[in-house]
Amino acid sequence: MNPIEILKKYVSYPSVSTDPAFKEGMVGSRNYVMELLKEIGFDVKLVDTPLHPIVLGQRGGEKDWPHIVIYGHYDVQPADPYELWDNPPFEAEVKDGRIYARGSADNKGPQVVHICALAKLLKRRPDLPLRITYLIEGEEEIGSPSFLGFLDEYKQLLSEADMVLVSDTGIPTPDQIVITTGLRGLVDLEVELTGPNKDLHSGIHGGAVLNPIKAIADLCSSLHTEDGKVNLPGFYDGIEGVQDWEREELKKFPLTEEGYKEFLGVKGLYGDKDFTPLEALKIRPTLEFNGIGGGYQGEGVKTVIPSKAFVKITCRLVAGQDPAQIVKLLKDTLLKRVPKEVTIKFKGEGSGHPYGVVPPGRSNTPADQSPVLAKAFLSAEKHIEKIFGKAPLYIREGGSVPIIADLKTVTGLDSLLIGLFLPEDNLHAPNESFHLGVMEKAIEAFEGIIEDIADK
Amino acid sequence: MNPIEILKKYVSYPSVSTDPAFKEGMVGSRNYVMELLKEIGFDVKLVDTPLHPIVLGQRGGEKDWPHIVIYGHYDVQPADPYELWDNPPFEAEVKDGRIYARGSADNKGPQVVHICALAKLLKRRPDLPLRITYLIEGEEEIGSPSFLGFLDEYKQLLSEADMVLVSDTGIPTPDQIVITTGLRGLVDLEVELTGPNKDLHSGIHGGAVLNPIKAIADLCSSLHTEDGKVNLPGFYDGIEGVQDWEREELKKFPLTEEGYKEFLGVKGLYGDKDFTPLEALKIRPTLEFNGIGGGYQGEGVKTVIPSKAFVKITCRLVAGQDPAQIVKLLKDTLLKRVPKEVTIKFKGEGSGHPYGVVPPGRSNTPADQSPVLAKAFLSAEKHIEKIFGKAPLYIREGGSVPIIADLKTVTGLDSLLIGLFLPEDNLHAPNESFHLGVMEKAIEAFEGIIEDIADK
Repeated sequence: MNPIEILKKYVSYPSVSTDPAFKEGMVGSRNYVMELLKEIGFDVKLVDTPLHPIVLGQRGGEKDWPHIVIYGHYDVQPADPYELWDNPPFEAEVKDGRIYARGSADNKGPQVVHICALAKLLKRRPDLPLRITYLIEGEEEIGSPSFLGFLDEYKQLLSEADMVLVSDTGIPTPDQIVITTGLRGLVDLEVELTGPNKDLHSGIHGGAVLNPIKAIADLCSSLHTEDGKVNLPGFYDGIEGVQDWEREELKKFPLTEEGYKEFLGVKGLYGDKDFTPLEALKIRPTLEFNGIGGGYQGEGVKTVIPSKAFVKITCRLVAGQDPAQIVKLLKDTLLKRVPKEVTIKFKGEGSGHPYGVVPPGRSNTPADQSPVLAKAFLSAEKHIEKIFGKAPLYIREGGSVPIIADLKTVTGLDSLLIGLFLPEDNLHAPNESFHLGVMEKAIEAFEGIIEDIADK
Repeated sequence: MNPIEILKKYVSYPSVSTDPAFKEGMVGSRNYVMELLKEIGFDVKLVDTPLHPIVLGQRGGEKDWPHIVIYGHYDVQPADPYELWDNPPFEAEVKDGRIYARGSADNKGPQVVHICALAKLLKRRPDLPLRITYLIEGEEEIGSPSFLGFLDEYKQLLSEADMVLVSDTGIPTPDQIVITTGLRGLVDLEVELTGPNKDLHSGIHGGAVLNPIKAIADLCSSLHTEDGKVNLPGFYDGIEGVQDWEREELKKFPLTEEGYKEFLGVKGLYGDKDFTPLEALKIRPTLEFNGIGGGYQGEGVKTVIPSKAFVKITCRLVAGQDPAQIVKLLKDTLLKRVPKEVTIKFKGEGSGHPYGVVPPGRSNTPADQSPVLAKAFLSAEKHIEKIFGKAPLYIREGGSVPIIADLKTVTGLDSLLIGLFLPEDNLHAPNESFHLGVMEKAIEAFEGIIEDIADK
């Protein structure tokens, strides 16, 4: 199995889950990964859901063998704006030690790492005493709306497993792997304001009507305080504290403020003034505007007062925050603040819980931690240190993989989250890529980690 | 000449001046109106400008004949959003006593009124002792950037005229004609903010970066005070007071707040708390947001922190305000308020001066008012009262026809602005239409008005 060729093929299927126009790409993408799993010996089937089906692969075995769940997602983010890509986003280009394509890092590249590691391992040890359940879903980029239903259906099977193995998180440099100990939760809400029942001439009517763009600007502006905090009363209630060992790990993170500013191309970082930028983006919740629109956006001038304006909001949540509670808080606050001259409408409300896990041997490791999970942590540390030259860091991540919390809630399973993508990989942005050096080493490391888990 | 057929044909040319894609429509539109003018006996030529040429028609005569300038514009506003139209915007539909099409009211319908009135008048009196210079420009909807250059070139010819006749303003009801005594000026500015050098994953980077959508919302929100005034220090400096006779005329305006709210479909009117809504939109300056955009605007969710966000701003100005001064004030204020973490860029800056004229016999009528203009005012009052059943009101208008002020500044000419379009005509909005009853009566009225101006 040639990982680069496999990944090139995998990313050629434009599997944008949020947009019904990409249905064919979704089908192609899941069919391809099903083939790959069959090739390395899995029993594979497609589990229907209300939206995009889930790929379920199984490698059975003796009852007393360890049983791991490997998770990935075959869907990708939209690729627009297309004009900012150097190559067509669904025609991979390999250059300068990277492979460029939408989905190359999030999450198709890491899946290829797992599959190629397993291919090598199972070729060498066809009788490996390890049960594996493979879950590759198609709705991760839209908040996995069908996954909870699937978990309920397969609760029995999954609850018998020992742990989940996932690579859908980040690392700071190609030689510094991070084992992710927390994920932020996510809620989304689209807010639409309607003022006049049609677009109005801004000369004839300007001065007597509340412009929905002004109203939405005022609302957006009200959602943060001047010192960079989210301005929803109660937003920070119930957030759990940070352990000393976590702060120590964070200090080892190889990123300076200057280097980060340069990477982002900004003149200054900006956020909650009570936290360092790294703390703010790893362990604190946020409220961000992902899109805004209203009125005339074409070339030149059109002197209208628009009828409507909208904004797309997402919040990242941390342990202690409840998504449903936060959505309610956001809606209630907006309803309270919206001026009476416009009407407000909400859309969306997808949500995912935050997640946290503690590596073995830390002050707050739970006493009932699964022995297979504990062993997996230790063998991951060993193989990563050997192959990448540095021990992994144990750090929380700013991103969200909401199903990790769902797996914990429904099946009791914790996850070993081994990060593989870099800041330069441009996830969710134009020119996404995956680092071929990381891919190669990671295949070797995962071969060792999975073998260790099998060998009691 | 059948006015409805002529107007149907005229609006079939999609003459959107702001968008280079509509070049063919611009050419078709001006060629058609040139044909019409030739048909009723004008010498017609096309005067080149840096952008869209101006149609110049001339009817000569004796030196001692009165000489009027008739102004119109063959360009129209963009028609989008197309999906909100009941018929294709450039295929006119006649129904319920109206003709629906982009440009039907602004300004092609009123031009057809003038041309058909002249056609009838000149057929009846081929030797009418009146010199007429026809100006039909193609850049009114984008602020007439070429018109000042044209005025400079034709200053001599135009300065010899006595007055300008224009119908590019509004009336409240089909039987209540308004003679417009003031027009608001206009400036435009597009503001673009850039934060990070690319769209960022809102999970991986959210919390440490200033989101340009938040920054633009804050800026927009800062541009009005809580009591509905424009929040630019010095914005209202130098504005001239309002005469008692103007307030009296305004009180006769047949529009209740309830009726206006119903027309707009809003739950409440909104504006400067020190003025009635009607005063606010006729005699006070504004700052409006005409469009806003940034980040992901498609279906579903895309969890980005966008690199850029923009807003399109226009201000309507009243007598006493200088457009260049206001643009400078707006830019300076934005530069002062923009946070250092983003960069700001300006685009646009078209501008037009506000204008005012006083009907004969008012307390503030200037002593040197042109006798032809004074006569035109009086004959307009007479014919309008006879044909529409009500004397016209003398009221300022919220909209802008910036070249009216330019004509005054460069050539000294004042304008008789006889309004013809209704609020229901949906100018600059989907389903623009022109009222056929108004059109028919106005043709009759203009025939009489122009004849009176000719007969000393």
